[in-house]
Amino acid sequence: MSEIKTIVVNRSAYADNDLEANALRAYLKDRGVFVVNLMSSPGAGKTTTLTKLINVLKKDLRIGVMEADIDSDVDAISIAKNTGVKSIQLHTSGMCHLDAGMTKKGLDGINISDLDLVFLENVGNLVCPAEFDTGASMDIMILSIPEGDDKPLKYPLVFEKCDLVIINKIDALPYFDFDLEKCKKAIKIRNPNATIIPISAKTGENIDQVAIYFKEKIQNWKEK
Amino acid sequence: MSEIKTIVVNRSAYADNDLEANALRAYLKDRGVFVVNLMSSPGAGKTTTLTKLINVLKKDLRIGVMEADIDSDVDAISIAKNTGVKSIQLHTSGMCHLDAGMTKKGLDGINISDLDLVFLENVGNLVCPAEFDTGASMDIMILSIPEGDDKPLKYPLVFEKCDLVIINKIDALPYFDFDLEKCKKAIKIRNPNATIIPISAKTGENIDQVAIYFKEKIQNWKEK
Repeated sequence: MSEIKTIVVNRSAYADNDLEANALRAYLKDRGVFVVNLMSSPGAGKTTTLTKLINVLKKDLRIGVMEADIDSDVDAISIAKNTGVKSIQLHTSGMCHLDAGMTKKGLDGINISDLDLVFLENVGNLVCPAEFDTGASMDIMILSIPEGDDKPLKYPLVFEKCDLVIINKIDALPYFDFDLEKCKKAIKIRNPNATIIPISAKTGENIDQVAIYFKEKIQNWKEK
Repeated sequence: MSEIKTIVVNRSAYADNDLEANALRAYLKDRGVFVVNLMSSPGAGKTTTLTKLINVLKKDLRIGVMEADIDSDVDAISIAKNTGVKSIQLHTSGMCHLDAGMTKKGLDGINISDLDLVFLENVGNLVCPAEFDTGASMDIMILSIPEGDDKPLKYPLVFEKCDLVIINKIDALPYFDFDLEKCKKAIKIRNPNATIIPISAKTGENIDQVAIYFKEKIQNWKEK
């Protein structure tokens, strides 16, 4: 699996990222390709969650994955090996986030003509990725139990931006001081419209709920 | 404890951060104040580790803490309450890291004239803080077990920069697929001189080792 395609992406030449992001969203809508920007801290379980989720969704949707990292190709290789879907690695040249230009370069590289759904795994970072619109059709995030229930308080922007907050590693709840209800309330203060789904990517618990969420979301988006 | 002092810090006016960082290090050396820049992902356990460590070190050293966050004062309040040492909150105005100018502003705010050791808890982020020299006397980081043993592969710079890597939450080792020896090897590839100390901030395991490390480090620094 070492033949994973790697694309070096870095800061867009466009001064106005928001303009470029909106143009990219319109371009994707025209082509019927739904792109999900997935954000989290390092190690929250983005790749494991995507693997489990894709193995449910791939029966109904043609899926591609773009794995953004500062260095290494381990995630793209892992996704390709464990799901069989088209997967490429984006190297950000040290950059801590993706912008719309970088995302477009990645989408050109993966070739979206035969895809319905593309997951963009952003750089593991709760701060900077939230500040830059990637042009994706929607933003989602993963918060994991070991990180603590105070994160919505400390990293407000990413919680405000995400339509879906997945709370991962609930299998580890007995071993950590994490108050799930307190955390849900804190997320709702930041973003009253957020959907919150607690899961365990490790055991597969509630992955089916996330799959149903995406199928409905994509259906609504197509009908708009 | 709600009277915690909060200082808003943001990007330095100085173009050359490295110059300013070196000047700050010299200023601190003149005054005999050792400043430790502590980096990690969100939720790796920086505040809990500092609390346990300070309660050992405060018998021998006059300690201050500067807690940097985008928002909220919970960490500075927690440190003050649980250790009794001087603690202030730095708000970064949305910035994802600290630079030397921001650090200097914080040090002026905490008043270092009666301190031997200041811990600077950087913004929770494995990418950007590693790119900016804060002017601290040394850089250290915490990696936690739930984040995974592949992090030295994916976030190279922070591992290259840190003289001390604390591996936290070893009490959770039985519940996660984390290969401690593999991780230590990966850290040594990035930084052959790094000292690695596995701890549990929760149970207190090996906190005494970290305390001994700092006492020796500060002694050597004073004698230089």
